[in-house]
Amino acid sequence: MTAVDVPELVAQAREGRPRAVARLISLVEGASPQLREVMAALAPLTGNAYVVGLTGSPGVGKSTSTSALVSAYRKAGKRVGVLAVDPSSPFSGGALLGDRVRMSDHASDPGVYIRSMATRGHLGGLAWAAPQAIRVLDAAGCEVVLVETVGVGQSEVEIAAQADTSVVLLAPGMGDGIQAAKAGILEIGDVYVVNKADRDGADATARELNHMLGLGESRGPGDWRPPIIKTVAARAQGIDEVVEALEKHRAWMDERGVLAERRTARAAREVETIAVTSLRTRMADLHGDSRLEALAARVAAGELDPYAAADVLLDSLTEA
Amino acid sequence: MTAVDVPELVAQAREGRPRAVARLISLVEGASPQLREVMAALAPLTGNAYVVGLTGSPGVGKSTSTSALVSAYRKAGKRVGVLAVDPSSPFSGGALLGDRVRMSDHASDPGVYIRSMATRGHLGGLAWAAPQAIRVLDAAGCEVVLVETVGVGQSEVEIAAQADTSVVLLAPGMGDGIQAAKAGILEIGDVYVVNKADRDGADATARELNHMLGLGESRGPGDWRPPIIKTVAARAQGIDEVVEALEKHRAWMDERGVLAERRTARAAREVETIAVTSLRTRMADLHGDSRLEALAARVAAGELDPYAAADVLLDSLTEA
Repeated sequence: MTAVDVPELVAQAREGRPRAVARLISLVEGASPQLREVMAALAPLTGNAYVVGLTGSPGVGKSTSTSALVSAYRKAGKRVGVLAVDPSSPFSGGALLGDRVRMSDHASDPGVYIRSMATRGHLGGLAWAAPQAIRVLDAAGCEVVLVETVGVGQSEVEIAAQADTSVVLLAPGMGDGIQAAKAGILEIGDVYVVNKADRDGADATARELNHMLGLGESRGPGDWRPPIIKTVAARAQGIDEVVEALEKHRAWMDERGVLAERRTARAAREVETIAVTSLRTRMADLHGDSRLEALAARVAAGELDPYAAADVLLDSLTEA
Repeated sequence: MTAVDVPELVAQAREGRPRAVARLISLVEGASPQLREVMAALAPLTGNAYVVGLTGSPGVGKSTSTSALVSAYRKAGKRVGVLAVDPSSPFSGGALLGDRVRMSDHASDPGVYIRSMATRGHLGGLAWAAPQAIRVLDAAGCEVVLVETVGVGQSEVEIAAQADTSVVLLAPGMGDGIQAAKAGILEIGDVYVVNKADRDGADATARELNHMLGLGESRGPGDWRPPIIKTVAARAQGIDEVVEALEKHRAWMDERGVLAERRTARAAREVETIAVTSLRTRMADLHGDSRLEALAARVAAGELDPYAAADVLLDSLTEA
């Protein structure tokens, strides 16, 4: 593999050239040897994108809603990035939902960059790759980055929770209330959307949600009260209200320093994940040179307990 | 908390006293200060239990099958441990399925030890706690340890995959074939069970499974060919065949050194997980003393890239 001219690639991405953006994301996803060079080049260009997470069970209309939000932001003249995160089988490594082409409405718009992403193996997986891809979109000049995740697995929920603003989507008549509560996604919303609101049961879903979230209870004067917005994303109904709610939440966070706090927390998670991934890589290297295997054989034989073995392992890693 | 007399507790557990076993599992689950002492005391007593993982989607009859297997092994005079692993919400920390009392048939049998376990927070979670609990049951003299997991989350599948022998359960008419394939659990079976075989569609499910697994294809002469066994666990039908298949698989592994390989691989994963957990704990400590937060703030501000920050973090951890 020939070395990439990173500064040139970054300059092209800044100009909005989709192939340069794609190449950069592939570089950060694939943990290329130039990953560090890419990340160092991107760092000073980041921190400008407003990152919005959208999550919800399959069938609530996430892609349609994301597409409608893209249209609304494009109308306002903003450059938009979309990161669509698919869960994948823990063993096959293949994408569960496939890499279907999404949101073809925007495929030819140079102001929109859409990327689909699946879990990449075990070394940190999505928790590791998604923030890096967001970083690329941010550095490439996207003013809004929409991160669409299926609210099923823990890592997908965590990715959504790490956005500047988290949108939780539901739809009437899917038993979503209880399902969402089980999956823990109800607890992360800054804005709630009941999509497909032209169907029976939309008001009941909104009421149930209002009740479960305790939105009727009184809050402190400066507290954020998550709104519940009814939409029909397929006809763009209610989408302007969602954008308005997002802007309100952003302004509220800005005023109170919450935005900076959230971004610092997100960066802390990112740094932690990279550190752990780096340690895992070093351990995999040790597995290759059979030191880990030798320790493990002694543990399996009962000669050593696993904690003592982990100590030896950590010592040998930090020597390196 | 008063210090526990670990050698005394281990001696009592060896005698099969259930309260001592329970206490030891609580100690290793809860990461008590005496964890290392407990693990060191247990190590020389381990390596004798035959660990069988049972996994499958909700509703296939895992608990009933586990209970029937316990009866069969008890009839053969063996001491049996059962570890029932429940997934839990990523955010609430509460158990999804609750800590319901299972398998009350065996509740009064001193030769059976049953433990239910939920995810314990983020620090390694099940991947960390389950092997430790298996270790306790092994050291306590259980000759067979049945680990029952819901084949839904990635960590549950991994736990099942790390057993000496993995049993994958299905039931007719649940669309299980495709569901299981998605979840990746189909790829881990050494023995397949189609439970509720008195229902319509059992033969079709077995055929579909046979086809998906390519069991009709020719294999090498020494290769293991996973059997597909039809059972009605609620009436103990087919359970003797399952036990026979388990014993055959165990003998096959023993002959070829596969058992030792699997146990070494399991120990390697365990040691790795403990090392990573230990690193995460140290990082959480750094978060407390605000060093991580200071780094993260610089990353959020674009002054530092996350890889450079992770390097600084790792350096400060290894100094400690």
